Amino acid sequence: MEKAIGVIDSGVGGLTVAHELMRQLPKEKLIYLGDTLRCPYGSRPQEEVRSFTWEMVEFLLEKEIKMLVVACNTATAFALEELQQRLNFPVIGVIQPGARAAINFTHNNHVGVIGTEGTIHSHAYTNALKSIHAGIQVNALACPLFVPLVEKGILHGEQAEMVVKEMLYPMKKSNHIDTLILGCTHYPLLRETIQKIIGNHVTIISSSEETAREASTILEFNHLLQNSEETPQHQFYATGKLDIFSRIAKNIFSEPVNNFKTVTIEKAVIC
Amino acid sequence: MEKAIGVIDSGVGGLTVAHELMRQLPKEKLIYLGDTLRCPYGSRPQEEVRSFTWEMVEFLLEKEIKMLVVACNTATAFALEELQQRLNFPVIGVIQPGARAAINFTHNNHVGVIGTEGTIHSHAYTNALKSIHAGIQVNALACPLFVPLVEKGILHGEQAEMVVKEMLYPMKKSNHIDTLILGCTHYPLLRETIQKIIGNHVTIISSSEETAREASTILEFNHLLQNSEETPQHQFYATGKLDIFSRIAKNIFSEPVNNFKTVTIEKAVIC
Repeated sequence: MEKAIGVIDSGVGGLTVAHELMRQLPKEKLIYLGDTLRCPYGSRPQEEVRSFTWEMVEFLLEKEIKMLVVACNTATAFALEELQQRLNFPVIGVIQPGARAAINFTHNNHVGVIGTEGTIHSHAYTNALKSIHAGIQVNALACPLFVPLVEKGILHGEQAEMVVKEMLYPMKKSNHIDTLILGCTHYPLLRETIQKIIGNHVTIISSSEETAREASTILEFNHLLQNSEETPQHQFYATGKLDIFSRIAKNIFSEPVNNFKTVTIEKAVIC
Repeated sequence: MEKAIGVIDSGVGGLTVAHELMRQLPKEKLIYLGDTLRCPYGSRPQEEVRSFTWEMVEFLLEKEIKMLVVACNTATAFALEELQQRLNFPVIGVIQPGARAAINFTHNNHVGVIGTEGTIHSHAYTNALKSIHAGIQVNALACPLFVPLVEKGILHGEQAEMVVKEMLYPMKKSNHIDTLILGCTHYPLLRETIQKIIGNHVTIISSSEETAREASTILEFNHLLQNSEETPQHQFYATGKLDIFSRIAKNIFSEPVNNFKTVTIEKAVIC
């Protein structure tokens, strides 16, 4: 049996990463675990996030996985380094890929980052950007209303635009950035509305897309790319709240996606 | 002393990769070697290309390098795997990064690739694309007049447009692709003209940009990113033909680039 890519998230946002992995790496099998029971992680202390993250990893270690994608900004900020040190397969997070893509796309070295309050206050994106390119000017902005908007399924139209406009006002006002990182895995669902508000002169970077791209890079570098021509049978698990899980999944996988019919959503038991 | 990124190319085209490495990884020191004396490699037999490539690598092994970037499509197609197996530091080529970026950018899974006759006939891009995503339709086209055009410094204007239009005619006629890979390190210098001819609905992927992006990914994954705040002192070597080297370098580095003033171009002795 070919090994899978394990994907963990505090809840449903990581499904945008899973979707991109399925799109960019259609031969690869995914095993996704969303900790919807204890979601969100953003406001929890670092020690708790680390502990919850390890519980998710333990669940996936019982499956056959060859790579772990931490599809959660908070878990990436708090636990990535430790996971990379202690696991004997590649582990990638969602922060560095988005940062690197922004460095590639920006022409004026003014990069915006939006995310949850937890992510923005952790300065994880700013640190990732500056560690590679000290000359990047970062305009970071917390957009706490975006996750509830996505989870309610309000992605387009007047209400969505109103909220996005209000949240992005300080960034739009300063008018410097030419590149904007969506630093939360929920945000790709609001991408069109965000683009409409921020303007077409700004390149929007989806951390989800870029993480899938880098998963592909790292798999190949480690000779772990799938060779089999068999259709992968993905597995999706959540620890609770299957209603939101299903609603978000429907919004994300609305376009034809291979093998989506074979996806099963089960309730994982984490002791 | 901090170790450098070694960059090898059959000649001057790899300078577009060097430029992108300097832009996206401004803390990293580069040591570039262009085998301008024996350029081009495209029409040489595989065994000769492998042998020349190893001679370049031997030269760089006398310097302190932590990564090797094979900034030449022919050398990537013929020698990458062997270099990766035998060298004890990361080695990346220019083909896979461009292929992966195209898979990310395409929406209709119709990808165009243009390159020298050698690269196109090697099917290296088609193989790289298909190995990751079997559903990608590839329209590959050799554009043998583009390298001479670039080396003569004819990048814009009527003559450049006429040649580009003629070369791209079969691809433009079929009108399917939404993404076009510049599968030769010379071509980023013709990017604006190519975009004008192929149309704005096509996303152009520069293998040079994407290779620099993946160099960044692999350096970080291997904990090899530069920490020093010192200005890197790049070294540029060529085995001959410094006139073309200088002309191309001037075209590539026309925008303000950190440390370009400190670059020295010397003649390497390869026995």
